[in-house]
Amino acid sequence: MPRHATRATREDGQLTRAALLDAGALLFAERGLSGVSLIEVAEAADAYPSQVTYYFGGKEGLFVEAACRELLRAASEVEAAGAGAGTPEAYVRAIVGTAVGAPGLLIFVEAMLLARTRPDLAPTIAGTFARLHAEGERAVTDTLVRHGWALRTSAATEARAFWATVLGVALERAATGGAGGTETAEAAVLLVLNLHPDQT
Amino acid sequence: MPRHATRATREDGQLTRAALLDAGALLFAERGLSGVSLIEVAEAADAYPSQVTYYFGGKEGLFVEAACRELLRAASEVEAAGAGAGTPEAYVRAIVGTAVGAPGLLIFVEAMLLARTRPDLAPTIAGTFARLHAEGERAVTDTLVRHGWALRTSAATEARAFWATVLGVALERAATGGAGGTETAEAAVLLVLNLHPDQT
Repeated sequence: MPRHATRATREDGQLTRAALLDAGALLFAERGLSGVSLIEVAEAADAYPSQVTYYFGGKEGLFVEAACRELLRAASEVEAAGAGAGTPEAYVRAIVGTAVGAPGLLIFVEAMLLARTRPDLAPTIAGTFARLHAEGERAVTDTLVRHGWALRTSAATEARAFWATVLGVALERAATGGAGGTETAEAAVLLVLNLHPDQT
Repeated sequence: MPRHATRATREDGQLTRAALLDAGALLFAERGLSGVSLIEVAEAADAYPSQVTYYFGGKEGLFVEAACRELLRAASEVEAAGAGAGTPEAYVRAIVGTAVGAPGLLIFVEAMLLARTRPDLAPTIAGTFARLHAEGERAVTDTLVRHGWALRTSAATEARAFWATVLGVALERAATGGAGGTETAEAAVLLVLNLHPDQT
């Protein structure tokens, strides 16, 4: 087989894989894992059901990978949202608002619950958390350095506490249908960060 | 029908209802909603499947009610665990450790996710949150008054942020199989509480 044909096939594979993740993220966010069939996701991605199995091992594997990708995408959006803020209050408002409203949060929560009974999928979740926390720590440190702000705790602890609180608030909002809760997360993050001009 | 017979029937009903909630809480905590059938719960409670439908409208209704009861039970245990602590650090360690390890937390998370697609069950969740937050606020206020400690935020905000963070940490621990995370929650709660002797 000529070299470019192999490459083309590999690229087609990457495109199919990405299309399945895109279609899955949309459908799962709307209806959850049990509300979407493997055949539906394949159809929405213009792929064969067997390709879901081939690339992800099954519907649950696709679900977890889509959820992890959405969470990391939300983290990038959170970082971008915070970049323009000039005061600690504006920074916290921007990152909390963006994080709590991110559409991928709840499928990530469902993926975390699924990992309890599917230990084969747990490493994907654990790896996503490791990356989330590492990138969060770096983003917080960048922000502190750029503005000359200080923390009362470590950037690592802050990044972890931020996502734990945001996941909890997003869940409460989703379950109770309330728009409330953002103030709670803002207050908690502001207190944890306790950003103030560095006087050391 | 004589009066005492009516009462006996009503008491039998209460016992059956409670037995179904007990059996459900145990089975659901082990295997989640989808891993347990209505017939299994009924058998474990020595009841008829039709009684699940009669008292709870179905398996999902029983699931949500059991989850809410478990969360409020965890809240009582958290309050009891914190009652004996003499320092802010010991208090936070006791309440965070008890909350994060509570067996009912994850079925409550699953119940919150379920409420998205079952709006008929959402009021039960919303009512449980209202009670959780009201009792949390009262418990925090009691603790402050008893010890003469002060907060940097309101007791209401602290109680809400506490449970949001704890739910997030419990989820991460369950998904990644790690015992880690408690330190994060402790650090976050300690910072939010920022308990110190009241000097006003």
